[in-house]
Amino acid sequence: MTPLPTYDTTASRALYERARRVIPKGVHGHYGYAVTDESPVFFDHARGSHFTDVDGNDYIDWMCAYGPMILGYTHPAVEEAAARQMAAGNTVSLSAPVMVDLAERLVDQIQGADWALFGKNGADATSLAVLVARAATGRRMVIKIDGGYHGSAPWMQTPGNAGTVAGDHDLVISVPWNDPAAIRRAIDDHPGDVACFISSPYHHPTFAENEAPADGYWAEVEVICRADGVALIVDDVRTGFRIDLTGSHATYGFQPDLMCFGKALGNGHPIAALTGGDAFRRAATDTFFTGTQFFNAAPMAAALATLDELDKIDGARVIADTGRRLSAGLVDVAASHGYDLVVSGVPGMPYYHNGGDGGYARHARWVAECVKRGAYLLGYHNNFVSAAHTEEDLERTWAIADQAFAALPPPGEGGTDLHGRR
Amino acid sequence: MTPLPTYDTTASRALYERARRVIPKGVHGHYGYAVTDESPVFFDHARGSHFTDVDGNDYIDWMCAYGPMILGYTHPAVEEAAARQMAAGNTVSLSAPVMVDLAERLVDQIQGADWALFGKNGADATSLAVLVARAATGRRMVIKIDGGYHGSAPWMQTPGNAGTVAGDHDLVISVPWNDPAAIRRAIDDHPGDVACFISSPYHHPTFAENEAPADGYWAEVEVICRADGVALIVDDVRTGFRIDLTGSHATYGFQPDLMCFGKALGNGHPIAALTGGDAFRRAATDTFFTGTQFFNAAPMAAALATLDELDKIDGARVIADTGRRLSAGLVDVAASHGYDLVVSGVPGMPYYHNGGDGGYARHARWVAECVKRGAYLLGYHNNFVSAAHTEEDLERTWAIADQAFAALPPPGEGGTDLHGRR
Repeated sequence: MTPLPTYDTTASRALYERARRVIPKGVHGHYGYAVTDESPVFFDHARGSHFTDVDGNDYIDWMCAYGPMILGYTHPAVEEAAARQMAAGNTVSLSAPVMVDLAERLVDQIQGADWALFGKNGADATSLAVLVARAATGRRMVIKIDGGYHGSAPWMQTPGNAGTVAGDHDLVISVPWNDPAAIRRAIDDHPGDVACFISSPYHHPTFAENEAPADGYWAEVEVICRADGVALIVDDVRTGFRIDLTGSHATYGFQPDLMCFGKALGNGHPIAALTGGDAFRRAATDTFFTGTQFFNAAPMAAALATLDELDKIDGARVIADTGRRLSAGLVDVAASHGYDLVVSGVPGMPYYHNGGDGGYARHARWVAECVKRGAYLLGYHNNFVSAAHTEEDLERTWAIADQAFAALPPPGEGGTDLHGRR
Repeated sequence: MTPLPTYDTTASRALYERARRVIPKGVHGHYGYAVTDESPVFFDHARGSHFTDVDGNDYIDWMCAYGPMILGYTHPAVEEAAARQMAAGNTVSLSAPVMVDLAERLVDQIQGADWALFGKNGADATSLAVLVARAATGRRMVIKIDGGYHGSAPWMQTPGNAGTVAGDHDLVISVPWNDPAAIRRAIDDHPGDVACFISSPYHHPTFAENEAPADGYWAEVEVICRADGVALIVDDVRTGFRIDLTGSHATYGFQPDLMCFGKALGNGHPIAALTGGDAFRRAATDTFFTGTQFFNAAPMAAALATLDELDKIDGARVIADTGRRLSAGLVDVAASHGYDLVVSGVPGMPYYHNGGDGGYARHARWVAECVKRGAYLLGYHNNFVSAAHTEEDLERTWAIADQAFAALPPPGEGGTDLHGRR
């Protein structure tokens, strides 16, 4: 293949300079971490599995907006459903019938769900889950996994983050992934005071390899939680619908009490959901947790259409298949350059790092060289595969990866410890 | 006027029964409090200042979706701007240029704003404001107003609410409205440990008359906060753009450090914003607070169009004028039936109660009789006026109110204490 041109991001840089004058950090939040001196920062438009930045560069998008895009950008059936509801009414003084349709759909579809409540972001669902767990148990403490992420509410933030206070974490116990004994100890250390255990169905931290549950892990966790009346909350916000359309817990063979969804649920329209079993219905009824925009009807219509389409195409399987091929091809390309590309995470959410010489800095350089040629990846975060990614996207990504490896500086230059932060 | 028919809500009742099977409480959150045995519960469509429920009944909407609707439902310019951006891309792996445009617009428009950050719900803005205040001051405590509402995050909830725990409120001090000395005392009681004072620009609790700031109140509060380096946060989420297009604080003559907006900002498209002064830019930059949907581009385009349109029509003035006429007319109608309808709150957000015999139960009955005839009001919450309400809406609302008073049971029946909860 002839050398691919490398992209110029001058327009992104100029807009970023404007942004820095009126937005702290220029780009705040999780989008801000991806901004480097050469990365694209602003998009112009997006279609299917691609987006085009403000410089006119086209990218195969393996981040999928950090998860929401699962069927492709501006998917016709989803956009039509959303637009039809938007034209009827989105945010009105009463609820929309589509809210009931969507709740019924989730109750039908999600294993163990007897009811649903809606919010905007995944953090709305996880925050409400903890509220419901506390209401149901009359207890206070929350057990979470080291490096687990459940949104940016203060209690979920890393202790010491700007603006958080010690009290935010007083009721949170953090335990290692894949360590049921640590969960057992945390419960024993706070007898009768642990309300819930909250975790992703598998471990997908940043700057670290993703880790699957060990054999028997979830069965053991379920027994431990049940034995002490600790509510089991699964945060399926990032993983939801990319592993199993009936909830990732179904694939992993356990039944949570409360299940949190967001991101892909609306294929880019803002909606999150908490679903739960009948045992938690009373507590959910008693809680007060709401937002002006929780009743937006158009994203609910978009979610219904997204679930319909995923069902029709067997979406989770399609995504896993594409993800498996993407990763296998990248491993081959890496090997042809003498690199050991390590793949972790589920097929639809691969986390990559180059295990060889150079550590994280070299891996980040390889990712940047891919981005400069039109494959949008992140080096420190799991990537996302959608049902819209094509054979051509795969072939082109492998070709880009090949040229990106070829563009790396010679071994021994620019290295840091493996997974060293930039 | 001939007697107006009273509405049948059979279809809403049937759908509500379906909802109760799959949604805790049937309708959760703030929308749930409005559900009674006879109220409409679900809308079919909404246009301008009206919505139609699933039984086909038409209502003049004086709740405006609890605030978001400010220009009328499905406003052409707003919907066109949102749809255009939605077609280009809404939730993509990069930020949208419209985010910068909107931040620049808010910095231009809002008095004292040097930067902006975006979220979905008002509670995103208020939660971030507290995080920024704590980051800026290195202090922990938050002073708020008794009965003030800043969203449903645990720390903002009423102590004792289901699922909240004592620790949620350990760092929150509640003081009465219009009592600068109480703020002073709270600061003195926690020397060097008060991060911020958060308050609406005027007091709009539920089940109680709204209260304006006393003469000199805000000037005194500003001096107290400045003297001790306490961040002054104004929660303009409910009031924003209905009092003053440059921020309600401009009308009340004070300058907060941090200003929270939401609701009307997107005319029904989900967006909230925190704006602040340069002194807080560093702290805002250092905080981590984000959500999957914070970067949705279509609601940002909708917000820009909403601000443009409000500016073009001098929206805050139009709304206040209509609100003043609505309230004056209702007071006249009430008087003609021997009732003293008490009006409080700003003209664009009137809170009503019948001060006469019967107390809250009678007032709620009158409100229900208005709703049954097509004027959608709430009895325990401020109402909202939009720029889309017409002369015909006013005339019809007064006629409905007249017949609603005539339909009340004779004095002495069905009373409770004034403002007694149902």
